[in-house]
Amino acid sequence: MEKLSVGNGKNYDIIIENGIISRCGQYIREVANGRRAMIITDSNVEKLYSSTVISSLNDSGFETGIFVFKAGEQSKNLETIQKMLDGMANFGLSRSDLVIALGGGVCGDMAGFAAAIYLRGIDFVQIPTTILSQIDSSVGGKTGCDLKSGKNLVGAFHNPILVLIDPETLSTLPARIFNDGMAEAIKYGCIKSEELFCKLETQNPKDFLPELIKECIKIKKDIVERDFKESNERMLLNFGHTLGHAIEGYYNYLHITHGEAVGIGMVMVTKAAENIGLCKPGSSERIKSCLEKYSLPYETSVPLEDLINFCLKDKKRRGDDINLVLIREIGQSFIYTIEADQLYDFLKGGPNGQH
Amino acid sequence: MEKLSVGNGKNYDIIIENGIISRCGQYIREVANGRRAMIITDSNVEKLYSSTVISSLNDSGFETGIFVFKAGEQSKNLETIQKMLDGMANFGLSRSDLVIALGGGVCGDMAGFAAAIYLRGIDFVQIPTTILSQIDSSVGGKTGCDLKSGKNLVGAFHNPILVLIDPETLSTLPARIFNDGMAEAIKYGCIKSEELFCKLETQNPKDFLPELIKECIKIKKDIVERDFKESNERMLLNFGHTLGHAIEGYYNYLHITHGEAVGIGMVMVTKAAENIGLCKPGSSERIKSCLEKYSLPYETSVPLEDLINFCLKDKKRRGDDINLVLIREIGQSFIYTIEADQLYDFLKGGPNGQH
Repeated sequence: MEKLSVGNGKNYDIIIENGIISRCGQYIREVANGRRAMIITDSNVEKLYSSTVISSLNDSGFETGIFVFKAGEQSKNLETIQKMLDGMANFGLSRSDLVIALGGGVCGDMAGFAAAIYLRGIDFVQIPTTILSQIDSSVGGKTGCDLKSGKNLVGAFHNPILVLIDPETLSTLPARIFNDGMAEAIKYGCIKSEELFCKLETQNPKDFLPELIKECIKIKKDIVERDFKESNERMLLNFGHTLGHAIEGYYNYLHITHGEAVGIGMVMVTKAAENIGLCKPGSSERIKSCLEKYSLPYETSVPLEDLINFCLKDKKRRGDDINLVLIREIGQSFIYTIEADQLYDFLKGGPNGQH
Repeated sequence: MEKLSVGNGKNYDIIIENGIISRCGQYIREVANGRRAMIITDSNVEKLYSSTVISSLNDSGFETGIFVFKAGEQSKNLETIQKMLDGMANFGLSRSDLVIALGGGVCGDMAGFAAAIYLRGIDFVQIPTTILSQIDSSVGGKTGCDLKSGKNLVGAFHNPILVLIDPETLSTLPARIFNDGMAEAIKYGCIKSEELFCKLETQNPKDFLPELIKECIKIKKDIVERDFKESNERMLLNFGHTLGHAIEGYYNYLHITHGEAVGIGMVMVTKAAENIGLCKPGSSERIKSCLEKYSLPYETSVPLEDLINFCLKDKKRRGDDINLVLIREIGQSFIYTIEADQLYDFLKGGPNGQH
């Protein structure tokens, strides 16, 4: 068992343990006094784990309800949130009761958001079942959903009271989804830990999943605890994401996974930084090889102009500057601010920007 | 000009001034750096004040957008919130921009909630235009909307950055809506200030509106600052509300206003408290006369059994006890906890409950 205490003031535990999903009720009972637990999950995860979770919760004295939504990003909207909230109210969930998010990132984001706004905020527990949600979504308190006009435009900061991570759930993931999560693990190595990056380069992650998950969470936790409301240091977590989101946006969030897009973004931005002497030469090549090891793409045929249009659309919201996350070398990241209209030159390798 | 500073840590100002609505832009510019302001209002208030507000905002350099929803409680749902959020996104509202709630309680609750969840929280300003929203909704940070399954089941705590109260807007209120607000003012007198109650008994409130509004807000502010997340003292604000909500619920929130229902609730619960010696005799009679002065009802033909069923439906969510707010005499309130199944006896005047 690996255990981390996360938070700023009001802490919560993240427990990483093989098979913990079948004992979840005991752990949840220790932190929750309520009588009822509402499980929120998607149509894929329901088949795999809902009966295990329900019987463990029942054994620990919880009365359980369940709300199942159709698996996939296209469910991540306010219509689903509304149905979820109606389901919670019809189940009679009270202020002292509990929401349990059982599934990947979409599930955690939405269930956490529903918990954040139901009766102006009730407790929730995360049981993330994908590597991406295990290493990324269980820390930081971000919850929410999409609007028609864009991704993640609605939400709330709301921490879970407990996160239970069962690395064995990853064995049921298709290879592409597993590798999708590895891209995010590689990102953690790039921004904060050459040691982690080396392990990912040289070893089989399936041999050290609990440690890998713990290592990634620790990096995120350290960053987030220093910066709960996104502003400065937390931006480092967006390494590869400015271009990654643009690639996802260009493909309308179809055909390419988040991790695949972020991987390409990391290589592009690092190559550009190398070109103007901001990053140790060879770093982008190293990231590229590591992505290849996990069958992840490292380049895109989307024209640079189109990507930049997507970046600016997104970033204009915060003003006229763009904050890019760059690395000096593997394991050392920093924020590099340029004006929006310098982005093209930067990515083409020209001189620009301010340090 | 009357001015109050409200909050717990991060304070905001409430400014009460005749005609302030036509100068709102200047005041808002002092607290907001953003470029854009999205006005949220209903179809009634739009006709009366939106052009005044827009031109004042434009004069102060704001680019303005407007979202208008159909006036009335039936708009207070997540469908309206979703359209509001889409409107905000389409207007290009950024994290540093602003929402302005222009209208009564429904408008303030919903616009505040939209601001609370848009981009995980942006600033908002309240310009309340009914007496109820001026004395009640501008303090306390409660925002939200209804679900199909019940009133105010969804929401967030989100304080405005500024509240601008123009008592002159009350001159456009129909008498019934004005009196609806007076019921809430009478409540403030009952729970905390015999002096205020006496003024309401003996004077014409239209002669001292700015002071009246300030007095009520001060009472709420003192209570809320001691207790930001509703738990103990804040409950005192619910004097008359347990039965009031039940009466509103019985009539499906039609035919009777919130204030009218609360007025009846105050008389009923005070009479019951007098019957078992918990309240100074004559207090309920005094409340009744004061309500009559404002053409407010003080009794209901709804059978007690039906009211109790509504109360229990609402209160079971928090456990098996009911917290009633009672007064010892006008100006002194306390919380009285009884078991749910003792409520009937209490209201019938039997012995029960624990102090």
